[in-house]
Amino acid sequence: MSDWLSEVRWDENGLVPVIAQDYQSGEILMFAWMNREALAATATDRVAVYWSRSRKKLWRKGEESGHTQKVHDIRLDCDEDVVLIKVEQAGGIACHTGRQSCFYRKLDQDSWQADQPVLKDPKSIYGK
Amino acid sequence: MSDWLSEVRWDENGLVPVIAQDYQSGEILMFAWMNREALAATATDRVAVYWSRSRKKLWRKGEESGHTQKVHDIRLDCDEDVVLIKVEQAGGIACHTGRQSCFYRKLDQDSWQADQPVLKDPKSIYGK
Repeated sequence: MSDWLSEVRWDENGLVPVIAQDYQSGEILMFAWMNREALAATATDRVAVYWSRSRKKLWRKGEESGHTQKVHDIRLDCDEDVVLIKVEQAGGIACHTGRQSCFYRKLDQDSWQADQPVLKDPKSIYGK
Repeated sequence: MSDWLSEVRWDENGLVPVIAQDYQSGEILMFAWMNREALAATATDRVAVYWSRSRKKLWRKGEESGHTQKVHDIRLDCDEDVVLIKVEQAGGIACHTGRQSCFYRKLDQDSWQADQPVLKDPKSIYGK
């Protein structure tokens, strides 16, 4: 692949942080990581492919849940070390808890309070 | 300080990644890091205080440029390891390049293309 991948400043683990934002509402859906291969695949296939740090393998978002992310836009920040993707979220659910966004907790006084509804029971998302 | 800071899963360097989003437009302005002290100060003072990894010290956003960020909302993700803040950006400029957002480059075919205007010459932002 070409030069644009080399302009990304990969961290010491060969990864770059990625923010996924709803391309229409602007809602921030999730945060994850990509390696070079994941970003190349994301750009080619136009669907979000991340690197799972826990499973140490490529993670095609939605491969289990069906909640794929169609990629509309790929952006790079001023330091070339953070990527922003604007996506169309299948099912309207990005979070493994069954919520639209992973950022469903808000600091209220001295505690984190969930203020977004569970749209689908995670058991039915990941159940066999 | 209280418990809520301990619910954040700080990384091996004692840091957490932070996404700053415009509280009205939803535009993603920048990405940076906070340590425990920075997040505590952000919550107390209601202005964004980051940890500068290069300078290894607290960085009160806007201390030089005047482009402070008034904090409206502080959110935590499902894994407790990423923070999202919704802010009111003073001067409408978050990026040190003089642009509204740090994510001013878009992948266009095989190259990154800047598509957001410089609103203020960085020399006049940081000039003595």
